[in-house]
Amino acid sequence: MIIKKTRNVEEEAIKVDGVKGITRQKLIAPPDGAPTFTMRKFTVEPGGYTYHHTHEYEHEIYVLNGKGLAKSEEGDITFEQDDVILVAPGETHQFINNSDEKLSFLCIIPNEE
Amino acid sequence: MIIKKTRNVEEEAIKVDGVKGITRQKLIAPPDGAPTFTMRKFTVEPGGYTYHHTHEYEHEIYVLNGKGLAKSEEGDITFEQDDVILVAPGETHQFINNSDEKLSFLCIIPNEE
Repeated sequence: MIIKKTRNVEEEAIKVDGVKGITRQKLIAPPDGAPTFTMRKFTVEPGGYTYHHTHEYEHEIYVLNGKGLAKSEEGDITFEQDDVILVAPGETHQFINNSDEKLSFLCIIPNEE
Repeated sequence: MIIKKTRNVEEEAIKVDGVKGITRQKLIAPPDGAPTFTMRKFTVEPGGYTYHHTHEYEHEIYVLNGKGLAKSEEGDITFEQDDVILVAPGETHQFINNSDEKLSFLCIIPNEE
């Protein structure tokens, strides 16, 4: 059994075009021995946003703190702490922190991605 | 994209031998269209505990609130809010709420289990 404190997991800034104010932590991943899926935590600064993109795997998301706006194929949807979000394979999506507080969420994906 | 409030997801009491004071919510599961893994939320009352058991699939856990004691093959390990836990396939495990506040955690498992 592995037990870790989230605050002790390395936080990487994602510095690429199309993304703003994002850090990522790989909380549980294949190097830990995770056989099927990977648990990441993302933190989004006020005014920050994730990629607006699509891919052939799903996201399962749990909103830990804050609130924001999801750009979905059905339009914009607001979300907040303790909401859960399923992005199905092939769905275009983006998450925007349109608030004045930090947003953080877990995002779980299959290992092969 | 599916967005849900955790408080709106049905909460089932787990009433079987070897388990005490536990409720479970299936936050994201195959009926939602989740292709690979299922996100559950467990709430454990003070003095409650999960099964002491083993199975051939993993748990990826994020502690949302409270604290407790994990019975692992390496001995007892305390955990608290914002800790993450990996239970590898085949590892015997149990989670005990030895505090006087509610404990809640996410527990993600592969769909086929």
